[in-house]
Amino acid sequence: MYVVKSPLPDADLKTVSEALQGALVDLVDLSLVAKQIHWNVVGPRFRSIHLQLDEVVGSARIHSDTVAERASALGVPPDGRAATVASGSGIGPTPAGWIKDTDAVRTMVDALGAVIIRMRQRVNATGEADPVSQDIFIGITADLEKHHWMFQAENA
Amino acid sequence: MYVVKSPLPDADLKTVSEALQGALVDLVDLSLVAKQIHWNVVGPRFRSIHLQLDEVVGSARIHSDTVAERASALGVPPDGRAATVASGSGIGPTPAGWIKDTDAVRTMVDALGAVIIRMRQRVNATGEADPVSQDIFIGITADLEKHHWMFQAENA
Amino acid sequence: MYVVKSPLPDADLKTVSEALQGALVDLVDLSLVAKQIHWNVVGPRFRSIHLQLDEVVGSARIHSDTVAERASALGVPPDGRAATVASGSGIGPTPAGWIKDTDAVRTMVDALGAVIIRMRQRVNATGEADPVSQDIFIGITADLEKHHWMFQAENA
Amino acid sequence: MYVVKSPLPDADLKTVSEALQGALVDLVDLSLVAKQIHWNVVGPRFRSIHLQLDEVVGSARIHSDTVAERASALGVPPDGRAATVASGSGIGPTPAGWIKDTDAVRTMVDALGAVIIRMRQRVNATGEADPVSQDIFIGITADLEKHHWMFQAENA
Amino acid sequence: MYVVKSPLPDADLKTVSEALQGALVDLVDLSLVAKQIHWNVVGPRFRSIHLQLDEVVGSARIHSDTVAERASALGVPPDGRAATVASGSGIGPTPAGWIKDTDAVRTMVDALGAVIIRMRQRVNATGEADPVSQDIFIGITADLEKHHWMFQAENA
Amino acid sequence: MYVVKSPLPDADLKTVSEALQGALVDLVDLSLVAKQIHWNVVGPRFRSIHLQLDEVVGSARIHSDTVAERASALGVPPDGRAATVASGSGIGPTPAGWIKDTDAVRTMVDALGAVIIRMRQRVNATGEADPVSQDIFIGITADLEKHHWMFQAENA
Amino acid sequence: MYVVKSPLPDADLKTVSEALQGALVDLVDLSLVAKQIHWNVVGPRFRSIHLQLDEVVGSARIHSDTVAERASALGVPPDGRAATVASGSGIGPTPAGWIKDTDAVRTMVDALGAVIIRMRQRVNATGEADPVSQDIFIGITADLEKHHWMFQAENA
Amino acid sequence: MYVVKSPLPDADLKTVSEALQGALVDLVDLSLVAKQIHWNVVGPRFRSIHLQLDEVVGSARIHSDTVAERASALGVPPDGRAATVASGSGIGPTPAGWIKDTDAVRTMVDALGAVIIRMRQRVNATGEADPVSQDIFIGITADLEKHHWMFQAENA
Amino acid sequence: MYVVKSPLPDADLKTVSEALQGALVDLVDLSLVAKQIHWNVVGPRFRSIHLQLDEVVGSARIHSDTVAERASALGVPPDGRAATVASGSGIGPTPAGWIKDTDAVRTMVDALGAVIIRMRQRVNATGEADPVSQDIFIGITADLEKHHWMFQAENA
Amino acid sequence: MYVVKSPLPDADLKTVSEALQGALVDLVDLSLVAKQIHWNVVGPRFRSIHLQLDEVVGSARIHSDTVAERASALGVPPDGRAATVASGSGIGPTPAGWIKDTDAVRTMVDALGAVIIRMRQRVNATGEADPVSQDIFIGITADLEKHHWMFQAENA
Amino acid sequence: MYVVKSPLPDADLKTVSEALQGALVDLVDLSLVAKQIHWNVVGPRFRSIHLQLDEVVGSARIHSDTVAERASALGVPPDGRAATVASGSGIGPTPAGWIKDTDAVRTMVDALGAVIIRMRQRVNATGEADPVSQDIFIGITADLEKHHWMFQAENA
Amino acid sequence: MYVVKSPLPDADLKTVSEALQGALVDLVDLSLVAKQIHWNVVGPRFRSIHLQLDEVVGSARIHSDTVAERASALGVPPDGRAATVASGSGIGPTPAGWIKDTDAVRTMVDALGAVIIRMRQRVNATGEADPVSQDIFIGITADLEKHHWMFQAENA
Repeated sequence: MYVVKSPLPDADLKTVSEALQGALVDLVDLSLVAKQIHWNVVGPRFRSIHLQLDEVVGSARIHSDTVAERASALGVPPDGRAATVASGSGIGPTPAGWIKDTDAVRTMVDALGAVIIRMRQRVNATGEADPVSQDIFIGITADLEKHHWMFQAENA
Repeated sequence: MYVVKSPLPDADLKTVSEALQGALVDLVDLSLVAKQIHWNVVGPRFRSIHLQLDEVVGSARIHSDTVAERASALGVPPDGRAATVASGSGIGPTPAGWIKDTDAVRTMVDALGAVIIRMRQRVNATGEADPVSQDIFIGITADLEKHHWMFQAENA
Repeated sequence: MYVVKSPLPDADLKTVSEALQGALVDLVDLSLVAKQIHWNVVGPRFRSIHLQLDEVVGSARIHSDTVAERASALGVPPDGRAATVASGSGIGPTPAGWIKDTDAVRTMVDALGAVIIRMRQRVNATGEADPVSQDIFIGITADLEKHHWMFQAENA
Repeated sequence: MYVVKSPLPDADLKTVSEALQGALVDLVDLSLVAKQIHWNVVGPRFRSIHLQLDEVVGSARIHSDTVAERASALGVPPDGRAATVASGSGIGPTPAGWIKDTDAVRTMVDALGAVIIRMRQRVNATGEADPVSQDIFIGITADLEKHHWMFQAENA
Repeated sequence: MYVVKSPLPDADLKTVSEALQGALVDLVDLSLVAKQIHWNVVGPRFRSIHLQLDEVVGSARIHSDTVAERASALGVPPDGRAATVASGSGIGPTPAGWIKDTDAVRTMVDALGAVIIRMRQRVNATGEADPVSQDIFIGITADLEKHHWMFQAENA
Repeated sequence: MYVVKSPLPDADLKTVSEALQGALVDLVDLSLVAKQIHWNVVGPRFRSIHLQLDEVVGSARIHSDTVAERASALGVPPDGRAATVASGSGIGPTPAGWIKDTDAVRTMVDALGAVIIRMRQRVNATGEADPVSQDIFIGITADLEKHHWMFQAENA
Repeated sequence: MYVVKSPLPDADLKTVSEALQGALVDLVDLSLVAKQIHWNVVGPRFRSIHLQLDEVVGSARIHSDTVAERASALGVPPDGRAATVASGSGIGPTPAGWIKDTDAVRTMVDALGAVIIRMRQRVNATGEADPVSQDIFIGITADLEKHHWMFQAENA
Repeated sequence: MYVVKSPLPDADLKTVSEALQGALVDLVDLSLVAKQIHWNVVGPRFRSIHLQLDEVVGSARIHSDTVAERASALGVPPDGRAATVASGSGIGPTPAGWIKDTDAVRTMVDALGAVIIRMRQRVNATGEADPVSQDIFIGITADLEKHHWMFQAENA
Repeated sequence: MYVVKSPLPDADLKTVSEALQGALVDLVDLSLVAKQIHWNVVGPRFRSIHLQLDEVVGSARIHSDTVAERASALGVPPDGRAATVASGSGIGPTPAGWIKDTDAVRTMVDALGAVIIRMRQRVNATGEADPVSQDIFIGITADLEKHHWMFQAENA
Repeated sequence: MYVVKSPLPDADLKTVSEALQGALVDLVDLSLVAKQIHWNVVGPRFRSIHLQLDEVVGSARIHSDTVAERASALGVPPDGRAATVASGSGIGPTPAGWIKDTDAVRTMVDALGAVIIRMRQRVNATGEADPVSQDIFIGITADLEKHHWMFQAENA
Repeated sequence: MYVVKSPLPDADLKTVSEALQGALVDLVDLSLVAKQIHWNVVGPRFRSIHLQLDEVVGSARIHSDTVAERASALGVPPDGRAATVASGSGIGPTPAGWIKDTDAVRTMVDALGAVIIRMRQRVNATGEADPVSQDIFIGITADLEKHHWMFQAENA
Repeated sequence: MYVVKSPLPDADLKTVSEALQGALVDLVDLSLVAKQIHWNVVGPRFRSIHLQLDEVVGSARIHSDTVAERASALGVPPDGRAATVASGSGIGPTPAGWIKDTDAVRTMVDALGAVIIRMRQRVNATGEADPVSQDIFIGITADLEKHHWMFQAENA
């Protein structure tokens, strides 16, 4: 039915829309994983990590909205449903139940590390096709790498 | 490892924790479904529904946090991971791709209706076991039924 | 024309909708009465009572909105028109013209007292039929009884 | 009892106080009518009109307070009680029950139109007697005519 | 030295600038008188009147600024120095030392009454010469008459 | 197509709508001229004038919106398009390129002066036909004359 | 002297007022104990616990105010004096002097646990007599159990 | 007269300054066109589009300021006067008078589409010469494409 | 265990820490006494005194925190527990139950007077030993004497 | 009539109350002088000095309030009436009419300098008698000397 | 000891970390230089430049934090100590003592110019190695060039 | 050139200006040291200390500004340049590179301790010469000693 006139040629659009859809899935999952640990973390550093995780949740929610609306703006419907996220995320499985604070930090280092690698690939893949989308990925990468540093610093 | 002294006897705790876990899954899914439609809705009422859906997302996120932290406060680790949500939600499947505004409204009426029925069952189930949790379910139901009315009124 | 699927069975719905409609009329009238005295009070305590009455107006307006939207959410159209309020309010007639500060306080004690009695009847009447509406009446009662105490304390 | 020294001669005071009392009744009723429709409107434009009506309510409440306190400042006790409003308003009867969005808009166009005509008569009537009160009526008219335009534009 | 091109002919300018200078002196004195009583009031209504007087101070300061800047905008240098205020104010002498709350209210009724009479004369005097300045005097009169009513109502 | 029932008789409406359309063009141009100088001013007083000009821009934008919406409220479509503004503004040509701060101030004194003269003519022209529109022109004139004074004071 | 007309029969009033007075004492003491530890905690988690304790203080102060004003609203004078608190609190003795962070957490777990048990008894005791007061106790319990979980999680 | 030391070599400066001047004209016109429709739109979606257009106006004003100040920072005086905008804008002519809501949306889709094409050309043209200016064009393009999507979605 | 290197020699530290501990007890008790009267005051001046007392509570809480943290900063653990306050306060016993407004004011005048005398002794005692602590006592005294004046003025 | 129990012996009270009364007169006059110049300054630095003077006005008003309420708190009625200020201020006469910006700055340097000398004498005079009042004078002196520096720096 | 897994290969990391460390030193020094002149500037434009310099300080502090945390995020410890800044800054020596306003502006033009040249070199150097860091340098350059223009415009 | 008339005699001025210049250098260095550790701290307490250090930075920046502007107000140009800070600070050398959290805390305890000793000497040195400057040093000392306690408490 609804067809939007995309400002990009078809090949470029394919490259960019795959990158956006992949980023959307990673970022929604990142927000769910960070909330899961926010609720289940225990140990002496509980409060500090509990609060820090909500900052990751906030970042991930804002970035996922930016990425999904960018897809819509290019004429490609984004897919952020639970099943799509559960099957397509680049983040490994998160353990159920209570999680010790040191394990919580390690889990977040791994989750952020996995998303960052894929996000940097998207930066490289989209520079030619659409510098506007690339600029969005660059900004997201900078923010994720800052969170990544902070969790790494805590387990030093 | 970590064992929290629950203020409830075991049988009551089982009843209440099942209700809380079920509510958590419904509410996380509700936030994902509402975001999905927020991004994909098209039609003359686009802007109005686009904005209205973000208010549902905001409500659902706050309620899911309340419910998950209530479970933790009772000593039961909550589970809000993507796979758990994808398999356990009480909301039926959401279609992929662009969605006409009238269909968007109908989908939200159905999604909210499904969650409300289950939430009212939780109100009934927990009154004896834990009036504190029941009070939380009552407040969530009131809010969801208000959103439900608004979407119904729009398709009149 | 427009028919909303109510989550309540018919008998319960009748009970609850009568309670909501009655509360709406009482609360709209309370806001008009308090404004009337706000404008007409005279005497040494003028300023103190003038300000205090606007807090009652604020409370009554918020509560009337909550009650009316609750009725709509249950599929019952609320009626807050001037004629309905004038004929159906549980508050006795308010005198016209300037009103001395001690009389103003006594009038408010009576008006609040009349509404509180009816609101407590609604708490009792709706517990079975709809605990969600009951919870709203409980909250309104707590607030009205606090205002009631304050005006009583002033005439001690 | 209480007699305030009015800054106006008796004939002028009579003219002005009738205009103020009439405006008060119209404006209180306008706020009740707009709330009534705010709660009962249904149809595809529900959300947009629901929000727009609350802006009319806000305007009408502020204007009624200004007008009533102006009467008090001139030494004339204002009367904004429900029965006075129900019998004296210049707005025609509002239908009970659910109201379709197009009908809701038409009802507001009529209600605002009726109040505007009377308000312009007050502007003319009070210029000689009290330019201070006239200035208040002028400001209210400007605001009501803006709301009037917006509802008219919506039914174009 | 500095000559501003006034938008008014000379005769009109003379009328308007006298009105503005007179209003400036009255309003600066009103702010000083209200502060004086704010500091010296005693009696059971101390706190209520102490706070109310600061609202008069706030109004008087804002109005004096508006009036002085209006004079400057018309090319007439305003004069708000202490000696000018002390010799030219329309407000009668204020007693030194502690002042009982009922006396404080009566003093403010008199002070406001004196300023209002002169301000209404300015409204009449300037309508021909400069409707812009007249509009400013009208707004100030409305505000002062509201304060006047409130103090009168307190001594009823 | 769309015909709004104007509250004014035809002859009055013609007078008022010409005044509103003229004011709209002047005010939009004033905002563009002030921005132009905001960007191009140089000299020791750069920062002070750069900031001051943005306050003129803010005033002009608000006033142009008020005037245009007033026209719509009277049933007359306003015209604020670039070509209309370029051909109909009462402000003389603004030089291109960098502008010394003293020249910048002089240009603003002239631009404001030209608009004020025409705005005062509109105050005179509309008093009979529509005191509501006249009141808007009075308020705008007061504000422009204040800006006018300030720029004049700077070149003294 | 002063006698307020209570909305409750005498037996119910006795039950409810004992519950309110007991809750008041517990909550005032909770605020003092949490402040005491806020000032005396030492150890690597100092800052985190220092901040967290001030949130408990904030909660306890708000709840104690709610409970005391509820008693007044029912016509029963509340007693929150230091000696009453020192002799009647349900919280065990707090050690004097510096306190290690792990001990601080354990002390808070015990203090909150003691208050929660008594608060749940009040929920059960007052449901019949006064659902309005019961609703207040339910809300306080939910909040205290959340704080309780957080301190427990920190000592895991 | 005034010569700023540009950080760019002459050829690059020429490229970049043409892009900035072109963008300035497009963006000022976009703000005028969106305001024009904001005032003249009629039809059932009046309110929704009326509000949405003011967001476009806000965006266009901020972007035009950024672009003009960037030109100044590079030593090139920007030109945003009405005549320059009227003759140089990339947006086609806007019709005068009332405009139906569907036509309003289509007009905005076309206007935004025309500006986006030119803005993407500026992104390509300036990457070599000045990555700082390019980054500004990229950010503006992302924002305009988001507005473009939203208007397109509304006419689906 | 924990020993902080105090910046003061032992004799000075003893003087200062006794002063700080005494002030802490007085200020915590002042906050409890003011709250007690806040809840129990009755009479025509109820509202005015009810509000004024909460300002004393706010002041006393902030000052007690400052004093306790100053003790900690000097290496002396502060003691603000209920029993310590109940036995060591410089304020005489407060009556239980409802308290007439004039009695409430007199009680506050006495309580503040008692604390002020002791606070001025602390100002004298600590000037040599620690001007930093003395400066804190001076600031607290100024604030308490302002509250003292206001209550005295009300009983004039 | 009204006698407040002063915390100071008579001789000290006399010293302190003279200092406070003197400071009050100086500070009220400073606020009037700064406003006078705020309205009358002309010249290229108009806007900068116009704004800076309002900051002096703000400071002087706050300080005069502090000083007057301190006098009341010590039981001495303050006198801030226009005639008292006109005859007792330590600031020399201010010229009437327009004032060139350089002269405006010089006038403020002199006015502030005169007040500072007297304020430092008050610091010396009150240290023995009342360190609380002295502390207030010290804070005011620091603030006035900062304003003094800024005006001096501008005439360098 | 602590080793963070850098997302960049070694050669790229060396390039980027040198650029970040150089930028950090420049930006910290820029904040110190701007503060130094903020305190020491004299002359007629004192106030304007005094305020403008604090905006440079604010920018420089935010940018230095961004750059340092970016280095940490890449696994390279940043060095912003006083000695490192004193020896490594790209800004030439700043004179001690009072500085005339025209000299102050010239000093800032030179300081900003020196930092901009080096920042543009960093933009070029890092595009290949790390587009995320490059994007940060681009944003900083845009901001510094805006400040640079403003100071240049002031000395025209 | 520029000579400010200092309110202090020469000998006193010398004493005070040395104290102010010394405090400025210490405080600027404290802000740089705290930022350095803010960026380089690692270990389980990373987040808590990272945030706490930014509060020290904020305090130190505000205090350094107060001290420098106090010097200017006394007519003595302050010197806060990087080289002056690097050579004159009272804080010992800070290690380069990553720093473990316990070492970070110890470093801050030492840095704050060194500054506090010197600041107390300044309190003693300046009481005679300038109580205004002394009051500033007292306030700074109180704040630094609070930070000092908090870091000490963390290493207990």
